Amino acid sequence: MTEFYDDLETRDPEKRETAHFQSLGPFLQQVATEAPGWAKRLDGVDLQAVKSRADLAQIPVLRKPEMMAAQTENPPFGGFAAINPGQGGRIFMSPGPVYEPQGKGPDPWRAGRSLFAAGFRRGDIVHNSFSYHLTPGAFILDEGLRALGCMVMPAGVGQTEQQVEAAAHIKPTGFVGTPDFLKVLLDRAQDVGLSLASISKALVSGGALFPSLRQEYRDRGVSVLQAYATADAGVIAYESDAMEGLIVDEGVILEIVRPGTDDPVPDGEVGEVVITVFNPSYPLVRFGTGDLSAVLDGQSPCGRTNMRIKGWMGRADQRTKVKGMFVDPKQVAEIAARHPEIEKARLVVTRVGDSDAMTLRVAASVSTDAESFLERVVETMSDVTKMKGSVEIVAKESMPNDGVVIADERDYDG
Amino acid sequence: MTEFYDDLETRDPEKRETAHFQSLGPFLQQVATEAPGWAKRLDGVDLQAVKSRADLAQIPVLRKPEMMAAQTENPPFGGFAAINPGQGGRIFMSPGPVYEPQGKGPDPWRAGRSLFAAGFRRGDIVHNSFSYHLTPGAFILDEGLRALGCMVMPAGVGQTEQQVEAAAHIKPTGFVGTPDFLKVLLDRAQDVGLSLASISKALVSGGALFPSLRQEYRDRGVSVLQAYATADAGVIAYESDAMEGLIVDEGVILEIVRPGTDDPVPDGEVGEVVITVFNPSYPLVRFGTGDLSAVLDGQSPCGRTNMRIKGWMGRADQRTKVKGMFVDPKQVAEIAARHPEIEKARLVVTRVGDSDAMTLRVAASVSTDAESFLERVVETMSDVTKMKGSVEIVAKESMPNDGVVIADERDYDG
Repeated sequence: MTEFYDDLETRDPEKRETAHFQSLGPFLQQVATEAPGWAKRLDGVDLQAVKSRADLAQIPVLRKPEMMAAQTENPPFGGFAAINPGQGGRIFMSPGPVYEPQGKGPDPWRAGRSLFAAGFRRGDIVHNSFSYHLTPGAFILDEGLRALGCMVMPAGVGQTEQQVEAAAHIKPTGFVGTPDFLKVLLDRAQDVGLSLASISKALVSGGALFPSLRQEYRDRGVSVLQAYATADAGVIAYESDAMEGLIVDEGVILEIVRPGTDDPVPDGEVGEVVITVFNPSYPLVRFGTGDLSAVLDGQSPCGRTNMRIKGWMGRADQRTKVKGMFVDPKQVAEIAARHPEIEKARLVVTRVGDSDAMTLRVAASVSTDAESFLERVVETMSDVTKMKGSVEIVAKESMPNDGVVIADERDYDG
Repeated sequence: MTEFYDDLETRDPEKRETAHFQSLGPFLQQVATEAPGWAKRLDGVDLQAVKSRADLAQIPVLRKPEMMAAQTENPPFGGFAAINPGQGGRIFMSPGPVYEPQGKGPDPWRAGRSLFAAGFRRGDIVHNSFSYHLTPGAFILDEGLRALGCMVMPAGVGQTEQQVEAAAHIKPTGFVGTPDFLKVLLDRAQDVGLSLASISKALVSGGALFPSLRQEYRDRGVSVLQAYATADAGVIAYESDAMEGLIVDEGVILEIVRPGTDDPVPDGEVGEVVITVFNPSYPLVRFGTGDLSAVLDGQSPCGRTNMRIKGWMGRADQRTKVKGMFVDPKQVAEIAARHPEIEKARLVVTRVGDSDAMTLRVAASVSTDAESFLERVVETMSDVTKMKGSVEIVAKESMPNDGVVIADERDYDG
């Protein structure tokens, strides 16, 4: 029998909708009182009158570039947070850069519900391979796990050999991290003759989990489910063992809008995920994630009654995730700017085996020593994106004139 | 006027001694009940009768190799912790490897007191450049800072450019990290034209703070004090603005013993720091840190009345810290073992400018392509120690036959 995190998950969808929109008006009024950035943005909206999805849709979508501009003008949060340093929180920088505070109390990013759905329970020991440095990724899961009564091993990224050694000793029962990295760990353990057989479940996020990889994990004894989370919002939606789409979190109102607009699309149509999050210390009101998805018809057979969405279907803009990290057209421009020889650059993201790969194709006027030029660009690429990639010189006329700076050539149907 | 963290710091030293030894017997009995490793180790000791330093000195010192052996036999903690995974803690791996749990409650490593002495107060925003990954370094300060009511920016290690960018935006008022890294940040900020002038205080640990560097920080507007902390114990001793030695933490009984023995030395003599820590979830009873120091006569002019020790005076064994990370003779052996050409190796640690540097001197039979051999050894060195170093081939007869595997040639008198 399916266990549920709480009764909210199985309530009548109409009751959920009523509860959300009864809370929303007072929540927006609180937000406008405590966060000057939101006060300014919501000025002129009759907040008490926001009682339905149609009312909510009248509020303009806030997108990352606007958030970044506000934060530059009024650091650190652009007035969009209702938190002060004396409350002992944490403050993060995500690629953009965008700055986010950790909300108050235990499990401020609502990860507990998704972890529970993935089989995590009190007493589990969990290997956390997200990064704790600068971005909130690792903390989103760390705080959720500890609130759930799990012990966390903060493994972080890199140091694969030590991570394997630690896990073989500590014998974690679960793993959280990017979809690909668990395989890196399992393979390395096999290579060095250590057993990670204690790991029987995983919650992954920060990239697509390809069906072939999920099957491989299953064959190796690990049941892997996904959560969809962002640095701004925390967990937005999560899989259950029904594995039919991702179920929206109980603390989030999710809309799908036509990319670049504020307008909800009809259910089923692909569009940008826009979220409203009931987080009093870092409220988000119609925040555009830049991610593409679509509402999935019907309800999950697991018994959870909330709206479901398809998995991540790409980026509304060209920003994309490679190995769990965002790569932005701005970064491609930055690489090009550091090498005057580069006339045009296009970053191609592909899938090699079970990993993401990046190739920067450049049209460049390199008269002598192309090899040293390529090496320098590879280094700049690693410097700017914090990931390794390869560089190819191509003829300028062979590059399409379509405005595409980042071409995502991964096949998401796996 | 000096502010104090609490009244414990200024109490009559005899009252402190009485309080410590009144608590010790019941504490040891609790430890023996809740932690089977300690129960076994303390078996035969009349715990209720432990009422003085002389009584305590009858208990054998537990050193890291014994702890490691017990942990291998009985993972993860060798029975030395009174904690279970369902309590939602964290678990760490430090070089050795040794595994440590995070104790219960806020500020489990008692960092708040040392931070307060270094000028940190509620409302401060703090740049934390210790690593959050695998080892507890960053969390020791993170938990202490947040308990004190400071907001933490988990910067971690590496990504210097992003750390500078984040700090320039967030404008932290304080820094915690290794003694050298703050200079790396300040220099980089200067290079890229960003201001880190918001940082006016720092608490550093994990390596020696050379007087010339402290002066440079002062000239650049940052008052820097040190804490002496270990992954096992948390904060053991800390500087105050009197800057006369390090004051022992109120939750620690500190002894100095003759290296390799269980016997306290006369006050003032250099020996190994042995600690007893009143931490119910991870109790340490006469734990040998492997660090050398000595008791400093008299009391601090700042008004704190606890025993003072000199700074870190090296390692009782040859294990040493380079750039804040331990390097062990075992690691040098591991590097040599991976290259059959190496007949003998000696790691020399020096100070270049304001940074630590490592050179591996090897006697090796390399018939062809010495350059490629050196490159491979450099790579192995980075793989094993997680730090960069250089490698030199020297004549075997030029290496002294003194058993020294790690030669620390840094000058601690700065």
